[in-house]
Amino acid sequence: MKKSDDEYAFVKALRMSGGVGANSYSANSLLQRRVLSMAKPVLVTNTEEMMMNLNFPNYIKVAELGCSSGQNTFLAISEIINTINVLCQNSNQNPPEIDCCLNDLPENDFNTTFKFVPFFNKEIMMTNQASCFVYGAPGSFYSRLFSRNSLHFIHSSYALHWLSKVPENLENNKENVYISNSSPQSAYKAYLNQFQRDFSMFLTLRSEEIVSNGRMVLTFIGRNTLNSDQFYRDCCHVWTLLSKSLGDLVFEGLVSKPKLDAFNMPFYDPNEQELKEVIQNEGSF
Amino acid sequence: MKKSDDEYAFVKALRMSGGVGANSYSANSLLQRRVLSMAKPVLVTNTEEMMMNLNFPNYIKVAELGCSSGQNTFLAISEIINTINVLCQNSNQNPPEIDCCLNDLPENDFNTTFKFVPFFNKEIMMTNQASCFVYGAPGSFYSRLFSRNSLHFIHSSYALHWLSKVPENLENNKENVYISNSSPQSAYKAYLNQFQRDFSMFLTLRSEEIVSNGRMVLTFIGRNTLNSDQFYRDCCHVWTLLSKSLGDLVFEGLVSKPKLDAFNMPFYDPNEQELKEVIQNEGSF
Repeated sequence: MKKSDDEYAFVKALRMSGGVGANSYSANSLLQRRVLSMAKPVLVTNTEEMMMNLNFPNYIKVAELGCSSGQNTFLAISEIINTINVLCQNSNQNPPEIDCCLNDLPENDFNTTFKFVPFFNKEIMMTNQASCFVYGAPGSFYSRLFSRNSLHFIHSSYALHWLSKVPENLENNKENVYISNSSPQSAYKAYLNQFQRDFSMFLTLRSEEIVSNGRMVLTFIGRNTLNSDQFYRDCCHVWTLLSKSLGDLVFEGLVSKPKLDAFNMPFYDPNEQELKEVIQNEGSF
Repeated sequence: MKKSDDEYAFVKALRMSGGVGANSYSANSLLQRRVLSMAKPVLVTNTEEMMMNLNFPNYIKVAELGCSSGQNTFLAISEIINTINVLCQNSNQNPPEIDCCLNDLPENDFNTTFKFVPFFNKEIMMTNQASCFVYGAPGSFYSRLFSRNSLHFIHSSYALHWLSKVPENLENNKENVYISNSSPQSAYKAYLNQFQRDFSMFLTLRSEEIVSNGRMVLTFIGRNTLNSDQFYRDCCHVWTLLSKSLGDLVFEGLVSKPKLDAFNMPFYDPNEQELKEVIQNEGSF
């Protein structure tokens, strides 16, 4: 298999389940909805500050990175639009026209999302008397998605813990699908290294796309800095459970052991220190 | 049924068949491909003139209205991008970054289209060393789709003969699904009136979205001006065949007569004179 084919195979595989059925992301994303709700004050404050720092422009372009599909997709952009319009009313300024670009991988279920657009537009028009245009932007946020200096506000919730690919050199991380207490030191290093490269690339790309004085609000899974043990994972218990469940399937002969040994999640949960290092080394923000 | 529900019901109904199966638009759009091919010289000339009139800007936003899904979707924008890049090379100018907005109704199968985006981007990058970003823009082109003064080039092929809705006052057009020799004069007037309102609205909306000195290339079905008979249709034989087929089903008792009597296509094929009148009366172009 050529490298390029392999690359697209990964892009095809890593996506949330589409539609609105029982097993869809749409019907199983209550946790992600709670996260959005908790981060709302930060989103609102940054939106207001962006508008004031840019001196109430008559046009705003917003990107929602890793939007997925279903009921959560429009939550953050609704909040951003409402915030902008309330602020404009309170400040006696004309509301801007707003382009909202919903991004996710090309295999994401955009059809389900787009069916809501007429209703979303109608509601936005009624509450805000604002003009808002919704677009889909298919592609990986580890590649350039938008033209130079075009975005005023970038938002991403519960998406950036997904890496661009499974790290290399995980041969010794047998029976684990992620970092756990039984992982070798090399596995931790492989994951950290991949995260550093990916997040650094993400920042470089976004710095090309965002206007001067624009704002970026990113929410993703991280681990507690107070515990300095590199193998301690306070929020990824699900991967341990998955490892054990797959181990059971191997024991029962339903899954081959080499397959489990070769399977690892493209996921990383940095602590604050690791995150700060990438941001400082990359230098754009 | 409330008016607004009715409106969305229509938007849901009027779309091409998605996917890539035997009955899909994708597998049955050879004619539309030929039309694109025949109109290519006009598309190329207008793209070149737009670039020169705008003095080779470093950013271009293109809209493809009524893009549908499948193999035809990327044909026109590929042509536009290639034309821009060849012109820039020949003129020793830096190629612009290009935003390509693919528009169709929200129920269009964008998922099938978006799966081709990574391959399209890769090919464009290789042939042109250009940066091109593809977006989906779900919505009716009889409503505002883009922010004010943002588009440099608007293209639409084989889409604008579709009206925004079935005309009113077609009660006497029984047994015909469109204008035919047996239609009353009122049916012709109802269709012409709906076309005039729709196309006029289309021009007003696009004039708000396009930049000064931008270009618009529209290809759609029209009828021969040489024959002044309002009921003469040189390119809509398919609707006569459909009327007759449905008549047969009524005769066989498989479809009820009131249903056929109430069924009319939201379609109009203006002649040159009718088209010129709308453009002149609307006045933006």
